[in-house]
Amino acid sequence: METTALPRRRGRPPRSGRTAADTREELLRAGMRLLTEQAYLSTGIDQILGEQGIPKGSFYHYFASKEAFGHAVIDRYGAYFARKLDRWLLDESAPPLQRLAHFMADAQAGMVRHDFRRGCLIGNLGQELGASHAAFRDHLEATLVDWQGRVARCLDAARAAGDLAAGADTARLARLFWIGWEGAVLRAKLVRASEPLDLFADHFLSTLPR
Amino acid sequence: METTALPRRRGRPPRSGRTAADTREELLRAGMRLLTEQAYLSTGIDQILGEQGIPKGSFYHYFASKEAFGHAVIDRYGAYFARKLDRWLLDESAPPLQRLAHFMADAQAGMVRHDFRRGCLIGNLGQELGASHAAFRDHLEATLVDWQGRVARCLDAARAAGDLAAGADTARLARLFWIGWEGAVLRAKLVRASEPLDLFADHFLSTLPR
Repeated sequence: METTALPRRRGRPPRSGRTAADTREELLRAGMRLLTEQAYLSTGIDQILGEQGIPKGSFYHYFASKEAFGHAVIDRYGAYFARKLDRWLLDESAPPLQRLAHFMADAQAGMVRHDFRRGCLIGNLGQELGASHAAFRDHLEATLVDWQGRVARCLDAARAAGDLAAGADTARLARLFWIGWEGAVLRAKLVRASEPLDLFADHFLSTLPR
Repeated sequence: METTALPRRRGRPPRSGRTAADTREELLRAGMRLLTEQAYLSTGIDQILGEQGIPKGSFYHYFASKEAFGHAVIDRYGAYFARKLDRWLLDESAPPLQRLAHFMADAQAGMVRHDFRRGCLIGNLGQELGASHAAFRDHLEATLVDWQGRVARCLDAARAAGDLAAGADTARLARLFWIGWEGAVLRAKLVRASEPLDLFADHFLSTLPR
C-alpha cells in the first residue's frame, strides 16, 4: 500500500538540484495533504509554501492564482485516486464485487493510518465550496463522475459474471455508491472510527440486486 | 412550510426596544444562515454582526468566544432540525415509512428554495472541523445521534405496523439513513439539483427489509 499512500507530512529541505517541475510537484503534494485535512479558504499560500521550505513569492511563478492551484490540486488528487481505484477494480485475480470490497477496505486503512484526520479532498472541497464557487463545483462533480464510471464498469463486470441481476442499473448503483461513501467518510471523521465505513460497505454490498 | 424555513437573509434594522435576548437570538440566526452556506473558519465575527446591524464590539457581550458561538449555533440548529423531523416523523396521519418520505421531500424542497446554496450545517461543520476540533466533533456527532434516534423511532413504528421485517435492526438502518442522507445533500449541492436526494430516498426506502 505504501506506493498509493499520500506523501508524508515532512517536506524535503530545498536542494540546489531541484527543478521547476519538482517544485511545482511538491507544491501540489503539499496542497493535497493540506486540503484533505483543512478548509481551502483558511489554507494560506504561505502555509503551502512553508511546508516545503520554498521561498515565499515564488508561488505565482508556478500558479496564476490560488484558484488555479486549487484546480491543479483537484486534478492531481482525482488522478491519484483514479489509479488507486483501478488498482483494485481492475484486479482480475478477484471477482468484481470482491474488488469493490477490497477498494473500500484499502480506503478505510488509509483513514485509520492518518487517524481519521484525512477525509476525501473532493468531499471536503465540495462541502466547503460547492455552494459558492461554480468552477470548483463543476470540477469536483466531474471528478466524482470519473470515479463513478470506474465503479460502474466494475459493477458491469459483476453483472456479466452473473453476480448482479441481469437488469441491474449499474450507473445508478455506482452513483449511489459515491453518495453513500462520501457520507460514510464524513461520519468516520466525526467518530474517528471505521464503523460508518464498515456499515455502509456491508449495506451497499448486501442490498445489491442479485 | 414557512414556519420551518430558516430565517430570511435580510436582517431587521436595530430597534431601540431590542433586548439582549433578542440580539443574542439574532446573532444565532445569522450564524445558522451563514454556516449552512460557508465555512466556519472563513466566517468573521464582523460578518455575523454586520448582517444584523449590531454594533461591532458587542459580540463578546453575548458569547465568550467565536467557539462558544459555534457551539450555540450547533445547539440552535440541532433543535430547529429536531422540530422539523418531529413535525413529519410523529405525524400519525401517515404510515411511518411515508412520514420518512415526507421529511425527505420537505428537506429537498428547502434545498430547492435556497437554490442548493444551503446544505446541512452539521455536515458542513463536520466536513470542515471534524478532523481538527475535538469539541466540535463530539457536539456534531451528538446532534446526528439525536436525529438518528428520531428516525429509529419512526422505523420502530414501521416495524410495529408490520411495514418492516420483524427482525429489522432499526438503529442500524437509522444510522445508514444519516450517512447516506448527508452524502446526498453534499452531492445535491455539487450538481445543484434534487436528483441525488431522490436517488438516495428511493434506494433507501426500496431496500428496507420488508
